[in-house]
Amino acid sequence: MEHEPSSTTTWRIHRYNGAEMLEQEDVIAAEAPLTIKIDGEEFATLVCTPTDVIDLVTGFLAAEGLIRFVDQIETLTLEMDRGFAHVKLRHLHQLNHAMVSKRFIGSCCGKSRQFYFHNDAQTAKTVRTSLQISIHQCFQLMRELQEQSDDFKATGGLHNAALCTADKLLLSRADIGRHNALDKIYGHMLRHRLPARDKLIAFSGRVSSEVALKAAKIGVGILLSKSAPTDLALRLADDLGITVVGFIRKDQLTVYTHPERILEV
Amino acid sequence: MEHEPSSTTTWRIHRYNGAEMLEQEDVIAAEAPLTIKIDGEEFATLVCTPTDVIDLVTGFLAAEGLIRFVDQIETLTLEMDRGFAHVKLRHLHQLNHAMVSKRFIGSCCGKSRQFYFHNDAQTAKTVRTSLQISIHQCFQLMRELQEQSDDFKATGGLHNAALCTADKLLLSRADIGRHNALDKIYGHMLRHRLPARDKLIAFSGRVSSEVALKAAKIGVGILLSKSAPTDLALRLADDLGITVVGFIRKDQLTVYTHPERILEV
Repeated sequence: MEHEPSSTTTWRIHRYNGAEMLEQEDVIAAEAPLTIKIDGEEFATLVCTPTDVIDLVTGFLAAEGLIRFVDQIETLTLEMDRGFAHVKLRHLHQLNHAMVSKRFIGSCCGKSRQFYFHNDAQTAKTVRTSLQISIHQCFQLMRELQEQSDDFKATGGLHNAALCTADKLLLSRADIGRHNALDKIYGHMLRHRLPARDKLIAFSGRVSSEVALKAAKIGVGILLSKSAPTDLALRLADDLGITVVGFIRKDQLTVYTHPERILEV
Repeated sequence: MEHEPSSTTTWRIHRYNGAEMLEQEDVIAAEAPLTIKIDGEEFATLVCTPTDVIDLVTGFLAAEGLIRFVDQIETLTLEMDRGFAHVKLRHLHQLNHAMVSKRFIGSCCGKSRQFYFHNDAQTAKTVRTSLQISIHQCFQLMRELQEQSDDFKATGGLHNAALCTADKLLLSRADIGRHNALDKIYGHMLRHRLPARDKLIAFSGRVSSEVALKAAKIGVGILLSKSAPTDLALRLADDLGITVVGFIRKDQLTVYTHPERILEV
């Protein structure tokens, strides 16, 4: 059932090498639209790397608050040549079409959480894991993530996310969309009933508010990144109990929030 | 009226420098939600860098096909502390709420354009400019873009887009969202009635389908990027008459589509 096209394709290019223009073949990141239909009705259209699509759709439905467990999906059928995922839900979990991606405005006192969508306020919960890792483990996991990223090296166009324990990279997923790579991880965890408590996520891309929110939805307390965070991401991470470690490069890193989980040993 | 917060802010961090952990202040990219209300009704919520917001909203409305000219906006009022832009349109230009971000499926013969949203099919037109630039000018414009990108250097979290003629960078805009940076350029062009025919865009980020579509909506025939394109972006650019030049680094570059606009002199 899971028809999986490749994450890359080829294209005829002209490359200027500093001296002359040469025509040759190049490896390019694949990108495809995917429309999720729920009970026959269009719910959302993503643009994604068309691999691990069952995981992607499962993670997306959970992140949007439509399901909490995988057995709430009655059927999930892919029609990849046309770019559709047909979903039938066993019973709609609090589905309120009007509230999905509807702007959320907290209380007036200005001290409320920085959510901007109603479904985030429902699905992103405070993470209370006691997991800790060492600085050395941060460097080690980030190195492993980069070693796994063959397609990125080939195309320069993919983000990579990996689910890890403190000392081991468990699985790595790639996508042209940052949030899609995380949804693929989330979907895998739901489908294989992996607990989040003892896990963390290593990520190649920037930590935007959306990425911090996904970590909270998945339930991981530590987010490692090669890149920079935004201030809204940090305010959310601070509030939701997530440790954000960024700019992990060579032997340097920056701990932005909840430093109690990062051990200097 | 245009209340403009900064594109950066500061945050208290712990930095590990390879030997010890030091607490210090760091510069971070600002990120803010912005909900666009049209005639009192929520239309969309963006997450953006809260600078040049009037340009951003104007460009976004045009890219979504709600306006074609700036005088179709009767009023545009920002309420930045709560993250709202209130828009009143003079007359709705073909607004069909049901069709915005509705999946577009072309004809069955498989030779149709690779649009995936109905509003893109309405707004992204084939670009027929005869503008040409030299390889040397590609390198020069990309160098200027990077020199202008002070906030990126400070925060590592912003994308930069610049409107250029063949030999000059005219204006540069930054945003945490790639498409937002382009909408800020588009809005500026509409508000100042700048023609697109003799212009091109230099861009720091990857060229996804969304970026190629924005170029076609803006009407520029050349897109220069430091990064990689996706295959869907290239199929769209090929079809819409846009020259995509990517991986512009030092003295090397790759021409992906419509090489007739790039002169090897």
